[in-house]
Amino acid sequence: MIWVDGTLLPRRRARIDPTDRGFTLGDGLFETLAAENGKPLHVADHLARLSRGADELGIPMPFEAGEIAAAMAELMKANELTQGLAALRVTLSRGVGARGLLPPESPSPTLVIAAAHRVAAPETLSAALVEIRRNEGSPLSRLKSLNYLDNVLAQQAAVRAGAEEALMLNNKGRVVGFARGNIFALIGDGLMTPPLADGVLDGITRHRLIRLAGRLGLNMAEHSLDLADLDRARGLLVTNSLLGAVPLARLDRRALSVPPALAQLVSLHRRDEMSEAGH
Amino acid sequence: MIWVDGTLLPRRRARIDPTDRGFTLGDGLFETLAAENGKPLHVADHLARLSRGADELGIPMPFEAGEIAAAMAELMKANELTQGLAALRVTLSRGVGARGLLPPESPSPTLVIAAAHRVAAPETLSAALVEIRRNEGSPLSRLKSLNYLDNVLAQQAAVRAGAEEALMLNNKGRVVGFARGNIFALIGDGLMTPPLADGVLDGITRHRLIRLAGRLGLNMAEHSLDLADLDRARGLLVTNSLLGAVPLARLDRRALSVPPALAQLVSLHRRDEMSEAGH
Repeated sequence: MIWVDGTLLPRRRARIDPTDRGFTLGDGLFETLAAENGKPLHVADHLARLSRGADELGIPMPFEAGEIAAAMAELMKANELTQGLAALRVTLSRGVGARGLLPPESPSPTLVIAAAHRVAAPETLSAALVEIRRNEGSPLSRLKSLNYLDNVLAQQAAVRAGAEEALMLNNKGRVVGFARGNIFALIGDGLMTPPLADGVLDGITRHRLIRLAGRLGLNMAEHSLDLADLDRARGLLVTNSLLGAVPLARLDRRALSVPPALAQLVSLHRRDEMSEAGH
Repeated sequence: MIWVDGTLLPRRRARIDPTDRGFTLGDGLFETLAAENGKPLHVADHLARLSRGADELGIPMPFEAGEIAAAMAELMKANELTQGLAALRVTLSRGVGARGLLPPESPSPTLVIAAAHRVAAPETLSAALVEIRRNEGSPLSRLKSLNYLDNVLAQQAAVRAGAEEALMLNNKGRVVGFARGNIFALIGDGLMTPPLADGVLDGITRHRLIRLAGRLGLNMAEHSLDLADLDRARGLLVTNSLLGAVPLARLDRRALSVPPALAQLVSLHRRDEMSEAGH
């Protein structure tokens, strides 16, 4: 079952108009949320980010946060996802439009919510540096827009290289993060993550990790990183809403360990997620 | 009426699956063609480019070129577009996929063809330089992928600045072209257009213009351009499949004239299009 514009219905009967600008131009945004035992995690943070992005693109939000949260609950129930781990995806597009780039003056946006099972995150992950660069010169690099084909190609390149995550640089050669997550690097005794201006997705888990690192008394900074900085790093994390915070065990041919400071942060984040999930 | 996966049907009954990767990730490509009196122009060139792009992305073409051309004819007839000017759009997506970035192993692509009226191109156009950069570090900058939201934002910025076309640079500050077309600059007695490596869309009209410039004996070169080069330019053209080749009458606050060499090229291109259309 899938939820489309206020109606819950079997996926095979659900319909997007072929002239929807989400389909024709990637004109929209999405959110991916983890859910546990029927409870979506950090739903307010995700819907606030979606709403900020929609403001930036000039897409009116067609439903209130409360309606979207209720839809998620109804959808998980209908798909028997109220026990264990699930993933939710909220997709907002600008809706149907005439030919051409310019949006209609009064858009009638499309909102889709889908739910699926997910498995628990692994203890560690591997990554490979890929060639495709992220566009620091576009506001879309900071938004979860429907323009995700660069990330698809990057992820495919990483898998071809025998890795699980794709490390991406921007056009200046600065580290941006992974095709499906943000990056944190422990360098000396400082924990660093690149600033949004480098073309970094404004990640919900990235925000939470920055705050949790402060709670642990880590020397946390948003700072541009290049590959030489990663070479010096004592440990690296990949973070996103489904994985949480996962240390890298390998970047290209280099094996990485998990220094105590990172292990502590990962474990604090896990406890924080469990408390959010109501354990 | 719209054509979806082999069937011609009323748009309101046509359906894209909400989990189609064209909608969820912009995972696909499109082509826009001009048609005149029911004849699509340069259909072989457009379908060859679509097929090359699909190869590059690993999307199998679900229909033969002949079937697509027949569908275009049927669609224009059904929409009473066999007289006068029309625009056709062919959209290819990788089709339905499970959650996540990685495509299914055996994708079942979606192909949509839409047709609409269009008006004749104006004699001249105006342009404004916009802030959003094109990503020279991604292969998508050279393909007409469904990731077109940067172009949408650029076009909106140009319109806000009182112009009709959005001039875009890449992250190195090099000129790429317009949000909806390629650029040609007459500098001294040389006609220049930026190389694909600068993040330039591999335009069908761009190719034709390069060949036609050769026929006119113009000193034609693919060469990187920066804003200082455009300041020195004696004239500028915007080119795409619907507009053809149109001189700029204004770039930001600078008025531009149309030197005889550009007027000749525009007129040769127009004759070439008319002969393609069967006049």
